Amino acid sequence: MTKPMTKEKIQAMLDRSPLIHFCGMRVTSVDAEQERIVIEMPMRPELERSPGTGQYHGGPIASLVDVAGDFALVVKTGAAVPTINFRVDYLRPAMGAVLIATATVRRAGRTIGVVDIDVSDSEGRLCAIGRACYSSQPG
Amino acid sequence: MTKPMTKEKIQAMLDRSPLIHFCGMRVTSVDAEQERIVIEMPMRPELERSPGTGQYHGGPIASLVDVAGDFALVVKTGAAVPTINFRVDYLRPAMGAVLIATATVRRAGRTIGVVDIDVSDSEGRLCAIGRACYSSQPG
Amino acid sequence: MTKPMTKEKIQAMLDRSPLIHFCGMRVTSVDAEQERIVIEMPMRPELERSPGTGQYHGGPIASLVDVAGDFALVVKTGAAVPTINFRVDYLRPAMGAVLIATATVRRAGRTIGVVDIDVSDSEGRLCAIGRACYSSQPG
Amino acid sequence: MTKPMTKEKIQAMLDRSPLIHFCGMRVTSVDAEQERIVIEMPMRPELERSPGTGQYHGGPIASLVDVAGDFALVVKTGAAVPTINFRVDYLRPAMGAVLIATATVRRAGRTIGVVDIDVSDSEGRLCAIGRACYSSQPG
Repeated sequence: MTKPMTKEKIQAMLDRSPLIHFCGMRVTSVDAEQERIVIEMPMRPELERSPGTGQYHGGPIASLVDVAGDFALVVKTGAAVPTINFRVDYLRPAMGAVLIATATVRRAGRTIGVVDIDVSDSEGRLCAIGRACYSSQPG
Repeated sequence: MTKPMTKEKIQAMLDRSPLIHFCGMRVTSVDAEQERIVIEMPMRPELERSPGTGQYHGGPIASLVDVAGDFALVVKTGAAVPTINFRVDYLRPAMGAVLIATATVRRAGRTIGVVDIDVSDSEGRLCAIGRACYSSQPG
Repeated sequence: MTKPMTKEKIQAMLDRSPLIHFCGMRVTSVDAEQERIVIEMPMRPELERSPGTGQYHGGPIASLVDVAGDFALVVKTGAAVPTINFRVDYLRPAMGAVLIATATVRRAGRTIGVVDIDVSDSEGRLCAIGRACYSSQPG
Repeated sequence: MTKPMTKEKIQAMLDRSPLIHFCGMRVTSVDAEQERIVIEMPMRPELERSPGTGQYHGGPIASLVDVAGDFALVVKTGAAVPTINFRVDYLRPAMGAVLIATATVRRAGRTIGVVDIDVSDSEGRLCAIGRACYSSQPG
């Protein structure tokens, strides 16, 4: 295994993506041994489901799931890997100043990586859960 | 069954959502009998995966899947319905001036609606496919 | 492309699997051009959800989805391919003497194949829909 | 909340289903507080993928996922709930005398329940993971 990525290097990779930059995603924790990463996404008006509700639309939550899952694998691979597919289950309306995605690698195989992503609000309520499958070949 | 929604009424509903408005989604076709709706999403710089590639990030594609699936049911229900869960499979890199999502209701039950969503580019290449499940109770 | 598999060769492959043989699955149609295969599964007492209801348990329906999706790709590859993941949505109780799965390849890529599987009863009612993702490398 | 179900009562419910009985599923642990249940499925020849390999076919693994997820909710509801949809990711070939499914409720809402199911072999290797969504209304 190559040396795991630092939080700073991962943030720099995140910032290079226009979509991720627009969504303001910030990596707050990288645990290479546990194969876990935490990425936050703050509210901004364009992410709202309905005007004035303060509720995140499900689409940006799916973006957060996809990105957090991808970068949980990047910690090891060192490069973003293509998403094959993912699933998101919405458990509760997601509100508040920031959403926090905790992505944990369940299997990093030779060809496929599978990651679980829990999305909570700032009070720790679980709002959505994702499960995502990536190609292990950077592309 | 109540009178099905017109394209204009659905577009007005879409425009009220800050996220959908930001993504510039436009309904181009409503077929109440086939329970099918077509929604387009044009490229804008904030939706790019990597700078200068012209490739849509998977996150906005998931947003398009979620919205198109939801509004395929709205044609009948007349109100947006909460997403329970969805899956997206990414088949090819998605490029070009616009993405076109065709959403077809597979089952509109008393409590659950299930919709298939095909996402193609402007040359008709299938880029991603979604399958989404909604609560039939507006919320 | 190599010569597509015949119905007889696919049935012989099906019969070699103890699980598939036990479930009595029969291939009834192979369309190599449309990349579509039809596989039937007759009721037998061990597949029932509750005694005397004549309703198929969701588990065997998932088996049928997995097998039909796999063999839709076998038509081209000539060998069974490992399942990466799949999703099944149950739309209606599945009853009757036989279930009919129609599996259509949505994308047969170099590394990944994606297949849609519709499961109907003998009266043509859609009971369940599956979406499955396979490795393109036989294994 | 009503009194949670005992292991014995759940096993009696399992045994009434011809499919579950045929698959020999046994509940080995019920934790009402953690909303977690453990169900085992021993190998039997009819569950094999290929003759003589000792490998479980993915179909019965999906059955185990579906049943374990369902009965994780039964602990509270007291009655089996209809499966809306589920996803299974296959991480490794599943071999050995028994498979062990640990199902944990992620959300038991008024209308929808979501459950995660980990399937391991007798040596503790994670072979497959499921995520399933059920209607909260017994049916």
